[in-house]
Amino acid sequence: MSTATDAFVQSNQERFLEELKTFLRIPSISTLPEHRGDIARAAQFVADSLAGAGLENIEIIPTAGHPLVYADWLHAPGKPTVLCYGHYDVQPADPLELWQSPPFEPELRNGNLYARGACDDKGQMHMHVKAIEALRAVHGALPVNVRFLIEGEEEVGGEAIAKYVAENPEKLRADVALVSDTELYADGIPTLCVGLRGLVYAEVEARGPVRDLHSGLFGGVAPNAVFGLVELLSKCKNAGGKILIPGIYDDVEPPSPEEKESWSRLPFNEKQFLKNEVGSTRLTGESGFSVQERIWARPTFEVHGVAGGFTGAGAKTVIPAVATAKVSIRLVPNQDPDKVVAAFREFVKKKTPKGIRTEVRVLSASPGLKVNPDHPAIHVAATALSEVFQKPTVFIRLGGSIPIVGDFAHHLGIPTVLMGFGLPDDCLHSPNEKYKLDNYYKGIMTIAHFFEKYGA
Amino acid sequence: MSTATDAFVQSNQERFLEELKTFLRIPSISTLPEHRGDIARAAQFVADSLAGAGLENIEIIPTAGHPLVYADWLHAPGKPTVLCYGHYDVQPADPLELWQSPPFEPELRNGNLYARGACDDKGQMHMHVKAIEALRAVHGALPVNVRFLIEGEEEVGGEAIAKYVAENPEKLRADVALVSDTELYADGIPTLCVGLRGLVYAEVEARGPVRDLHSGLFGGVAPNAVFGLVELLSKCKNAGGKILIPGIYDDVEPPSPEEKESWSRLPFNEKQFLKNEVGSTRLTGESGFSVQERIWARPTFEVHGVAGGFTGAGAKTVIPAVATAKVSIRLVPNQDPDKVVAAFREFVKKKTPKGIRTEVRVLSASPGLKVNPDHPAIHVAATALSEVFQKPTVFIRLGGSIPIVGDFAHHLGIPTVLMGFGLPDDCLHSPNEKYKLDNYYKGIMTIAHFFEKYGA
Repeated sequence: MSTATDAFVQSNQERFLEELKTFLRIPSISTLPEHRGDIARAAQFVADSLAGAGLENIEIIPTAGHPLVYADWLHAPGKPTVLCYGHYDVQPADPLELWQSPPFEPELRNGNLYARGACDDKGQMHMHVKAIEALRAVHGALPVNVRFLIEGEEEVGGEAIAKYVAENPEKLRADVALVSDTELYADGIPTLCVGLRGLVYAEVEARGPVRDLHSGLFGGVAPNAVFGLVELLSKCKNAGGKILIPGIYDDVEPPSPEEKESWSRLPFNEKQFLKNEVGSTRLTGESGFSVQERIWARPTFEVHGVAGGFTGAGAKTVIPAVATAKVSIRLVPNQDPDKVVAAFREFVKKKTPKGIRTEVRVLSASPGLKVNPDHPAIHVAATALSEVFQKPTVFIRLGGSIPIVGDFAHHLGIPTVLMGFGLPDDCLHSPNEKYKLDNYYKGIMTIAHFFEKYGA
Repeated sequence: MSTATDAFVQSNQERFLEELKTFLRIPSISTLPEHRGDIARAAQFVADSLAGAGLENIEIIPTAGHPLVYADWLHAPGKPTVLCYGHYDVQPADPLELWQSPPFEPELRNGNLYARGACDDKGQMHMHVKAIEALRAVHGALPVNVRFLIEGEEEVGGEAIAKYVAENPEKLRADVALVSDTELYADGIPTLCVGLRGLVYAEVEARGPVRDLHSGLFGGVAPNAVFGLVELLSKCKNAGGKILIPGIYDDVEPPSPEEKESWSRLPFNEKQFLKNEVGSTRLTGESGFSVQERIWARPTFEVHGVAGGFTGAGAKTVIPAVATAKVSIRLVPNQDPDKVVAAFREFVKKKTPKGIRTEVRVLSASPGLKVNPDHPAIHVAATALSEVFQKPTVFIRLGGSIPIVGDFAHHLGIPTVLMGFGLPDDCLHSPNEKYKLDNYYKGIMTIAHFFEKYGA
């Protein structure tokens, strides 16, 4: 652990913060066409920052969507190569009236920097750049080889980067990827994420009569598309949260006893979680599994939305012709998305009620992922984290998906260090997004130490 | 049967048609505020027509909504009194591009008069007025006492008339009501409707977490409002169409063997019905009951619409906080709507999945109705129909509801003769609404004969 690097970060805190604020002032909202110019400005800002940190071969790569930014520094022969990933695009800021300060005018309050993108992911991505800058300033060179690949479409599906990674495995060759787009388990607890769930997302459409029928004239004999869909969906999962699609649990790999044991030691207050985060009358899901297991290590079936028939004010007595649901199955490591899709299609076919025709449209299918906790980069990352935070690093999983991690595994054959410094209450995608300034600086130091130790 | 009345109708066909066309040119769409002036014009047209037919005590009665029109002729002492009901308001005409001729420029094609309201209900209501006119012209007086009560809100719920009937039973005193807002079983088949289903209509709202949650971060432990609603609704009815709410069938009065037998003799082609009217792969519903029984004489549970969570394009992985369904239970004679509402509320309470909170909002509750086929007015109406159509009158029921019939029964204590002359393909509420001209004239004659015979 180089105290020189820490000293450099400390003496440059103010400048780093000002640079980050400049970055945050660019409203690079990827989903809104009117912000295309801001997207271009943000990509240029990233390219300039990378150049300023001493990286080379800077490219702004046009794509069918928003540009990628590439850079590298490859002058540490014999040392491992780290591929740093981040994204410069952000979510829309509405509802604007709920922001305490304007989303694109960063404001410091109580040690937190408030702005859209402060944490997700401009602030976290910026840490990588500043860590490189610190190392170059202190050592004159980097302890490892690095590549940067930064995208501008993460909030809208990340199609361009997925294509680019698939088509350029040679150019992106690395030993490990580093992604800072996750959070600490809780403030002050150094955290590595070593597992992600995958996702099969589909639309299910049910059709009954050829058009909406009058329920007085046809009620009793005509199939009802909404009720048909209701019948079908109700068969997908029982009241205990068990998915009823045959074979769905066949390949589920349970967490190791050590991992389960480590989860049980995490600070967790179920009452507080229910009250403050879920806000319902009780938690649900499979009995015999802890909350962490249910969220991190069990497949789930969810209906994300449903629409059909008359939903305006008042009463209309139609037998609806068509109804649609958005559903997903979250996958855990070792489950094959294609197999799950096939099982779901077969199930829908078999369970479609009489008189109803159904169609399943699969929108995406990605596997769950596990990072080998014994990988040297993980060991090094855990140590760097522990040293900066002065506490043992905890290993958790994430119940959601980060598709790029799968792309790195699949196309580049490399694991990813998921080392993020956000907090559970950072309000990502919501009004008043923030990033705790202390975690921004600690993140820069931790990442610098990670590079130092990984190159040692 | 007075041939003089028929002769008068025949010799005045052209004038009657022109008058009806004038009526149809008024776009009296009750649901659109911009047509308030047209509503007033239509009410005035009705009042003028009634005056022209020789009725007295004409009133245009202001209400909280659209005006009622009242008139009477009470100079047949010792004779029964008939309360004629109809409505001068119409449904909106959109989608306009599907009309072959403009909806408010009546056009005669192939013996049919095309216009919004041609059948529902301006054309049918107009028959009552013209029958009165014919009788007065031929006999100088009417064979019975008559009252007219015409409303302008039938297509938007009919609140004003319901209130008026409840508050003015003395003023509306009559022996029987006459409503021509139904159809013939098939063209050429004289038809009386002697049963209606009632309707309990409700919204069911389900709430899970306090706000939409990320299904990656909470999937597996957080209750899902959409799935909760799906689970609940799926328990209301089984795949065989049987309603599973306890007690729901307790008071169901089966049709008499004679009525069932008469239904079995009605011309009906199930294959054609499935193909041309329902347009699905098969009919559904309770086994052991004919199609007519299922539609006319069995309670049904339908979901008219459902909404919740994310339903836009693409994928969004939320666990929805709230979901709503519109549902109804159709009632048959002898079922008590209040009892059914209570049973449904209790069922929802009991079957609400864990972690979900539900609320039932009842929007309306009206009973099913049966007209005693042995009532003298029904006998007379059946005879008048048979004579004009030269065929035996068939007795059917209607699977839908006509709330005013319930109001007449409840507040005035009188049965209703449901004698309509529309056809199943008249496209009520749809583009290209029509009324077969021959049925318009036959209707005037039949109604005139009904009055003659009822007064004899």
